[in-house]
Amino acid sequence: MSTSQDISDREEGLAFQPKFDASGLVTCVATDAASGDVLMVAHMNEEALRKTIASGEAWYFSRSRDALWRKGETSGQTQRVVEMRMDCDQDAVWIRVEQQGAACHTGRRSCFYRAVTGSNGDTRLSFVDAERLFDPTKVYRK
Amino acid sequence: MSTSQDISDREEGLAFQPKFDASGLVTCVATDAASGDVLMVAHMNEEALRKTIASGEAWYFSRSRDALWRKGETSGQTQRVVEMRMDCDQDAVWIRVEQQGAACHTGRRSCFYRAVTGSNGDTRLSFVDAERLFDPTKVYRK
Repeated sequence: MSTSQDISDREEGLAFQPKFDASGLVTCVATDAASGDVLMVAHMNEEALRKTIASGEAWYFSRSRDALWRKGETSGQTQRVVEMRMDCDQDAVWIRVEQQGAACHTGRRSCFYRAVTGSNGDTRLSFVDAERLFDPTKVYRK
Repeated sequence: MSTSQDISDREEGLAFQPKFDASGLVTCVATDAASGDVLMVAHMNEEALRKTIASGEAWYFSRSRDALWRKGETSGQTQRVVEMRMDCDQDAVWIRVEQQGAACHTGRRSCFYRAVTGSNGDTRLSFVDAERLFDPTKVYRK
């Protein structure tokens, strides 16, 4: 159980003590260092965090593939980390990156290529900034 | 089990079909509409999403308090939503907001008030943009 001293240390201290969830992960938000746009939301385990810090390139942990993953290792669409920040309770990191090409596996620059609009229960999506920079059927084929 | 048709619909379609996790939540990233800075990472359940879309003000679901929460209901530090976007697999939303005052419960503008630096296993945090806009002991006292 966390005491208030633990919480104060984690929030106000300068020790790097990521708070991993039950699966051993923290949430990572990657934004475009140039535009400020959110490119993707993903997860890092201890090893992904360590490799990202050591290499200056983004590494993640894929929950669906249950595997460590260097961003761009298949697609070539790497992320160079310009700055990494930790949030108040140390369960989320924000990286500002220089994105090579497209961050999204669908070929778009950002995973957030649809806006949410609606009212009165009629909520819909609409494409925005949704042009593809690569063809995923070509990049990811075996 | 998801078929490739389900995945294609969710990623390429315009139907709003958030993919909630086992706790009924999606991840939400809030960025400052003016500066592009990430202000916070939090969660929304179906009701929080619905109320956010209907009201244009950010609502979240607090995992620690197990309760729906209108951002700023205690502190007055509300968030007006300028745009909401959904990510490729619909398990994360990005909102660009006009933040009233400070987003973080510690009184800072953003929860990400510490940079991560280090190499060779000596990883440390350092304060950046960490000035307090309010005193949390005054704002949150009973």
